[in-house]
Amino acid sequence: MSDTTISPLAPKTKPDIAPVAGVTLAAGSAQVRYKGRTDVMLARIVPGSSIAGIFTRSSTRSAPVLWDQDILTESSGASPDGKPLVIVVNSGNANAFTGRAGEESVRALAAAAARSVGTDERAVYQASTGVIGERLPHRKIEAVLDDLAASLSPGAWHEAAAAIMTTDTFPKLASATTELGGKPVTISGFTKGSGMIAPDMATMLGFVFTDAAIAPGALQEMLHGSARGSFNAITVDSDTSTSDTVLLAATGGAGNAPVTEADDPAASTFRAALDGVMRDLAHQIVRDGEGATKFIEIGVTGAESNAAARIIALSIANSPLVKTAFAGEDPNWGRIVMAVGKAGEAADRDRLTIRFGDILVAENGWVAESYREDDGANYMKGEELAVTVDVGVGDGRSTVWTCDLTHRYIEINADYRS
Amino acid sequence: MSDTTISPLAPKTKPDIAPVAGVTLAAGSAQVRYKGRTDVMLARIVPGSSIAGIFTRSSTRSAPVLWDQDILTESSGASPDGKPLVIVVNSGNANAFTGRAGEESVRALAAAAARSVGTDERAVYQASTGVIGERLPHRKIEAVLDDLAASLSPGAWHEAAAAIMTTDTFPKLASATTELGGKPVTISGFTKGSGMIAPDMATMLGFVFTDAAIAPGALQEMLHGSARGSFNAITVDSDTSTSDTVLLAATGGAGNAPVTEADDPAASTFRAALDGVMRDLAHQIVRDGEGATKFIEIGVTGAESNAAARIIALSIANSPLVKTAFAGEDPNWGRIVMAVGKAGEAADRDRLTIRFGDILVAENGWVAESYREDDGANYMKGEELAVTVDVGVGDGRSTVWTCDLTHRYIEINADYRS
Repeated sequence: MSDTTISPLAPKTKPDIAPVAGVTLAAGSAQVRYKGRTDVMLARIVPGSSIAGIFTRSSTRSAPVLWDQDILTESSGASPDGKPLVIVVNSGNANAFTGRAGEESVRALAAAAARSVGTDERAVYQASTGVIGERLPHRKIEAVLDDLAASLSPGAWHEAAAAIMTTDTFPKLASATTELGGKPVTISGFTKGSGMIAPDMATMLGFVFTDAAIAPGALQEMLHGSARGSFNAITVDSDTSTSDTVLLAATGGAGNAPVTEADDPAASTFRAALDGVMRDLAHQIVRDGEGATKFIEIGVTGAESNAAARIIALSIANSPLVKTAFAGEDPNWGRIVMAVGKAGEAADRDRLTIRFGDILVAENGWVAESYREDDGANYMKGEELAVTVDVGVGDGRSTVWTCDLTHRYIEINADYRS
Repeated sequence: MSDTTISPLAPKTKPDIAPVAGVTLAAGSAQVRYKGRTDVMLARIVPGSSIAGIFTRSSTRSAPVLWDQDILTESSGASPDGKPLVIVVNSGNANAFTGRAGEESVRALAAAAARSVGTDERAVYQASTGVIGERLPHRKIEAVLDDLAASLSPGAWHEAAAAIMTTDTFPKLASATTELGGKPVTISGFTKGSGMIAPDMATMLGFVFTDAAIAPGALQEMLHGSARGSFNAITVDSDTSTSDTVLLAATGGAGNAPVTEADDPAASTFRAALDGVMRDLAHQIVRDGEGATKFIEIGVTGAESNAAARIIALSIANSPLVKTAFAGEDPNWGRIVMAVGKAGEAADRDRLTIRFGDILVAENGWVAESYREDDGANYMKGEELAVTVDVGVGDGRSTVWTCDLTHRYIEINADYRS
């Protein structure tokens, strides 16, 4: 929004984004809701590409999410014979909780985008982010699609990232180059989101592209794997949008021998690079968390399983009392103990160890003898914080990222009527 | 705390609390942490009484909680032959996460209270509420127990309720008279709590007494039943204390034929009265929720089961975005849809019905034709709000109570270092 100052946790430099062979992008203004800025993004992905997706598990999913899930299942992630894949995204209106009208908008947009770019309707992936419960004025978007299709270019990454923003205070992009089967390969992408659902401006969206040649099944598995340590390991306020969508497309333009198994050893370097790009994008969402002033890593070890560790880590990351303590720069380890206890997973109270950064705060069920409150208080003044907790019962481990809960969060979500 | 103004949602009048035959109370000042106020409560319950308890499920439970669970299990809720039961509660220090020292404090206090009142050590129930991780200075409490035992009186209800407060802005008491087996029966009790765990001042505690004659097993079952619609149906900030404790004692002083089965039809009127007292006490905790300006009832119907309805209701009640919308008097039904969706329980998006009070807001998966935003906005200006949601898949129903999330919550929990 125009009156928003950029988050203090935003990256200090604008990233260079490498083009991806086979991907062209365009952004434009349909004035769905916003004036004086772009609000539609179009991506064209060359024939022969693969696509994978992960979506919100909400039982009140939006019309575009249901559409994407349907066409992805039907096509198994393949592009139609000799025809490109398309992604159309608008900001300003989420087309969520719009009943049958929502489906009609999605079908109309698919038809229009297919005509403009020259592909099948069911090769048009869609995402919408913005107000809930208002009919999407899809004709406004249709009206700009021909122009966007005519202006598709391989370098419009920053323009695309800006067009999908809602309450975001900065565009979020990341890029990496790596190798696959001896060929240089590029991964580039962008994302948006600042609350799990912002003031009527829902949603986390992510779009990642690579020129690697990867079969759809392997691509889907890689996306799930990378999401575990990125988009699925962040939380701003524990709320989940009706529209969360992450798409990963692979064009094959790099010319590597196609990867057909996600666990192919030849792809391990590529997968690490994909992990890195997706984690970078996910961290940027936390760094733009509504009202955030601290970027916080929560690491849990010693749990019964990785899944148990994740539940405990999220219990800490989502606790309002933990998050307000961070906002107040209060080294309040008692609240960490509380959040471990309420998680419902096994933890040995008398073997619990808590560290703030490298500072040993508590061990063996009590404050550590070496711990000085002044050290904890000084540590909390930093902008990037790490809390690690060992719960003393097993080998399970998990890391999640979150931000603090501040007055600004309340202002954004309570004081301004949407 | 002395600098806290009384919650705007506090009851407007001080309740009359009827004495309970067989129960005497005293309050005093041990200066555990607070100066210039009382901080210890002692209750004596006549020989032959029954006692029941429910406790936090936290895996990092405090030493007094573990002690109470142990002696309650051992005694099956009976008092020792010819000897009274005792409850000792202090505020200012939670004796939580204090390792072996915590156990030593509990044992020392049990011995001291048993000597002062004249009973067995293992008939001394305890609760501590206040800072976590600091050793309880139990000798300060021991030093006042003889004086408290000497001053026990049947009328000291308000004094007892005041002594156990931490960040509470008002003492919380409730009382009812009813009948059981043709005899007049009294139920009186008090509680404390304002966050699920307050700024280092943990905990929800509740103590309820009746002169009805009820066998321990039946009493425990009645306590569980009443808690479902009271202490277990409220949430301020979704956080759970290491020390939550509710005790219910029955003295038999009313002279009714002892009730041995919780579902005895003769006890149905009594159970309804017990439900009422416990609900009243639980509501008072929400009314004193940190920073609360709205008291909100969330009712969910049409779920697959009562348990599913409860999960959906708590998902709505605990959503920071829903709670900030209430704080901003924003009739933001989109956030209700979001919270239903993220709950992980079955809901039919296209049969969802949402009401604010009597106002039909949404039905059949979209905003209701009759709904006017002005009506919703006017409704939100009230201090007592009700949201009802039908999720359209079954007969399950549940009601929970919560409050809004305001700047004052952040102030209490972030701005003031503990």
